[in-house]
Amino acid sequence: METMIKVTEKVKLKKPILIEGLPGIGNVGRVAAGYLVGELKMKKFAELYSPYFLPLVILHQDSVAHLLKCEFYYYRGKKNDIVVLTGDTQSISSEGHYDVCNAILDFSKKIGVTEIITLGGFVAVQEIKEPRIIGAVNDKKLLKKYAKYGIDFNKDHPVGSIVGASGLLLGLGNIMEIPSLCLMGETIGLPLITDPKAADKILQVLLKILDLELDLGKLEKIIKEMEEKINKTDTIHKEILEGMPKPKDDVKYIG
Amino acid sequence: METMIKVTEKVKLKKPILIEGLPGIGNVGRVAAGYLVGELKMKKFAELYSPYFLPLVILHQDSVAHLLKCEFYYYRGKKNDIVVLTGDTQSISSEGHYDVCNAILDFSKKIGVTEIITLGGFVAVQEIKEPRIIGAVNDKKLLKKYAKYGIDFNKDHPVGSIVGASGLLLGLGNIMEIPSLCLMGETIGLPLITDPKAADKILQVLLKILDLELDLGKLEKIIKEMEEKINKTDTIHKEILEGMPKPKDDVKYIG
Amino acid sequence: METMIKVTEKVKLKKPILIEGLPGIGNVGRVAAGYLVGELKMKKFAELYSPYFLPLVILHQDSVAHLLKCEFYYYRGKKNDIVVLTGDTQSISSEGHYDVCNAILDFSKKIGVTEIITLGGFVAVQEIKEPRIIGAVNDKKLLKKYAKYGIDFNKDHPVGSIVGASGLLLGLGNIMEIPSLCLMGETIGLPLITDPKAADKILQVLLKILDLELDLGKLEKIIKEMEEKINKTDTIHKEILEGMPKPKDDVKYIG
Amino acid sequence: METMIKVTEKVKLKKPILIEGLPGIGNVGRVAAGYLVGELKMKKFAELYSPYFLPLVILHQDSVAHLLKCEFYYYRGKKNDIVVLTGDTQSISSEGHYDVCNAILDFSKKIGVTEIITLGGFVAVQEIKEPRIIGAVNDKKLLKKYAKYGIDFNKDHPVGSIVGASGLLLGLGNIMEIPSLCLMGETIGLPLITDPKAADKILQVLLKILDLELDLGKLEKIIKEMEEKINKTDTIHKEILEGMPKPKDDVKYIG
Repeated sequence: METMIKVTEKVKLKKPILIEGLPGIGNVGRVAAGYLVGELKMKKFAELYSPYFLPLVILHQDSVAHLLKCEFYYYRGKKNDIVVLTGDTQSISSEGHYDVCNAILDFSKKIGVTEIITLGGFVAVQEIKEPRIIGAVNDKKLLKKYAKYGIDFNKDHPVGSIVGASGLLLGLGNIMEIPSLCLMGETIGLPLITDPKAADKILQVLLKILDLELDLGKLEKIIKEMEEKINKTDTIHKEILEGMPKPKDDVKYIG
Repeated sequence: METMIKVTEKVKLKKPILIEGLPGIGNVGRVAAGYLVGELKMKKFAELYSPYFLPLVILHQDSVAHLLKCEFYYYRGKKNDIVVLTGDTQSISSEGHYDVCNAILDFSKKIGVTEIITLGGFVAVQEIKEPRIIGAVNDKKLLKKYAKYGIDFNKDHPVGSIVGASGLLLGLGNIMEIPSLCLMGETIGLPLITDPKAADKILQVLLKILDLELDLGKLEKIIKEMEEKINKTDTIHKEILEGMPKPKDDVKYIG
Repeated sequence: METMIKVTEKVKLKKPILIEGLPGIGNVGRVAAGYLVGELKMKKFAELYSPYFLPLVILHQDSVAHLLKCEFYYYRGKKNDIVVLTGDTQSISSEGHYDVCNAILDFSKKIGVTEIITLGGFVAVQEIKEPRIIGAVNDKKLLKKYAKYGIDFNKDHPVGSIVGASGLLLGLGNIMEIPSLCLMGETIGLPLITDPKAADKILQVLLKILDLELDLGKLEKIIKEMEEKINKTDTIHKEILEGMPKPKDDVKYIG
Repeated sequence: METMIKVTEKVKLKKPILIEGLPGIGNVGRVAAGYLVGELKMKKFAELYSPYFLPLVILHQDSVAHLLKCEFYYYRGKKNDIVVLTGDTQSISSEGHYDVCNAILDFSKKIGVTEIITLGGFVAVQEIKEPRIIGAVNDKKLLKKYAKYGIDFNKDHPVGSIVGASGLLLGLGNIMEIPSLCLMGETIGLPLITDPKAADKILQVLLKILDLELDLGKLEKIIKEMEEKINKTDTIHKEILEGMPKPKDDVKYIG
């Protein structure tokens, strides 16, 4: 079986910008992506399944089982449509990370994605007063474009590498010639503990870039609504990862 | 080498229902499936082999070696023919679980399977008086269909995920549009210790669903007959798993 | 990269019987196979390479590096030509075992192999006076054919499974309809310590089956000659396996 | 996703000799290769990416992310053009080593490579006065050709095997009929600590073979310039490898 993307609604998108927010450190990306999906009332149009996810289904309240998956949502924007990619999980193996990201980029090419913004967290090395947003791009030329949003592109920030989807989408995106930006929010969070502060800060920057106005006051409420779902998959992840004796590719990741 | 299914008898089946019962917690699914095969005098028509099984052959009494395999049996039913999938093992790797289940579903499509029922166990969190049967479906609409059989679809049961074939067949089955039900019997059993009580309870529900009448009084006897075979593969499994230093995908599974 | 077999001499073989003897417990199979190759002055005609072997080359005395490989040799027999498969290693992963054995069998079909005899060791559970030779077949009908050679096909022998090539060739050989026999010599040996006694006993049986007369008095001498080579690859194997922290598929094997 | 080579400049090369120097013990090969690239002002013409590398991107000073990769550079020589293959990393899995080396050799064939020289280190078993250069070839005939360069091809040197790219390129190169030499410099270095002395010694031999005259006095300076880059990827490697609980294929390698 291969990683596969199932299109659930055929849509024609206008120069879409892809926003990726998958589980990771502080759940920063996932929470920010989930907020957009909820607040913009985005519609799902595709699902991604992969043999590189954990081999299990999750049960919902009503005993309906579903495979671990990632989901693509869309929103009709002014100049650009917006596509959000979020989901239950990332790959559990090293090769799987490449495979899944490659599938995402192939699909992005197919639907005409013109730009990718990936969202993640990074662990603070000191006490956080106001979480910093550190940025990375996959093409030097983009630095100028994103100079005005208060993103830290300074060389002395503490991030030396980005592991997982948020990083690989940039790296592989460069080969496929899709300009991409990664926004990382500073967090004290452990991999699977949600940090709303960093998500809030990342959303402020992201909304400016996307030229959208949304009430971030609802973020806390939205996070509460997401919590049941996040807790469930997080608990399962943690239980299984603890039950798995020394998984070979359980690298600590930021993305 | 790929996962492969070898058809040993070409049969045309009438709207078959596939019952899956492979080794797992309490051997609940395997014992229940084995009972059906024995009592209904089902005939084998296909075998499944996979490079994701342990790389060994098992010797039988007469020194005849056979690969670890799963087997498909059929029975001519009234409205629906019944196909039982049972076997020696499940995949030992995470990706292998997806690959094997995908092969099972491809084959199911080919032989016209209209519905899948997977059988498994789940570990009780408290003392068991009468084992509960917890259910999960891969389509909300099925909840009504199965409402009358005393299956616990209630949201406060203790099962949050189903690992292995019993779960993945539901999840992947949904993508392939095969309506599927998972029945899980409550057991105190460890992964490879047979629990006849849970199997008995699961069979009661299953026979009602399949509209079959069989004497479950023989279950204890049948289990005894199956025991030599089960003990052999179980011992081998246990020995090998113990000998394998920290297999990466040895997740605890229900299916 | 795939497992590949490179033919170094094109030969037309007469109903060849394939004898497999690869590294394993007590090196029984490898030593017996090496003896045949040496004593019968067999000629190499093919080499097998696989990405499932350790990723290294071995240096010989003259600083010439070669990949870990298996080799096919042939000998012109009376009724049947004889092909011996021996080599430096077996697969280091579980799926690799299936892949390599599948490649061996595809090649066997291509060169017209009519029968396979695999050679291995099994660890004695008690003190050995005279090493027993335990047999396994992949088709019940073969038991009669091999009844007269003093092979123990009795059901109460201590072997319940055969791991690795010696086992899988039987199992997969059955699917490909190549009748196959496995001969296992009783040994106190650890996986990589050569046990000439078991090899001697297995050769006695094998020569009778093949209807060959060879002076086994030279076995000790031959083993000495083989030792430098065996020691080298064994040391490398051991060092690397020790250096590898908990390889996932380091199953203890007989084959 | 497969290992892939992206050609960034189409060049026609004259009987090119490929020099491989990737990260390994003492970084000997990588430093020597980097020196050639720098001193000869070589031009990059291709990049290699692989799903068998760690799933991450590295950030440079200016926050530009790039995938872990290997790079091909060329230099117009007198009789032969020179191609240098160097990079951030080697494969992190055993099968990956075969896959990446196979891709390198396929590409080498395509661009007409007539000879390969791989560079590596080996750990000294005693105190080093003057680092020895030990050699290995993939064809006995080459021993004569390289006899005059002071390379130790003597049978009693301490190297019994070569793990990783430097070894596999020889081994697989033999199958593809590309004559190849491996030069290994004696070092006390740990896998990821640069040893300029061994690199210096290996360069002396290499320059003689390539009939090039270069000022090795600059080596120390060049190494300093490379250090920031090397330190960065080395730190990331070390951090990630430490964070990865018991990677299965983290074999200690020479290449």
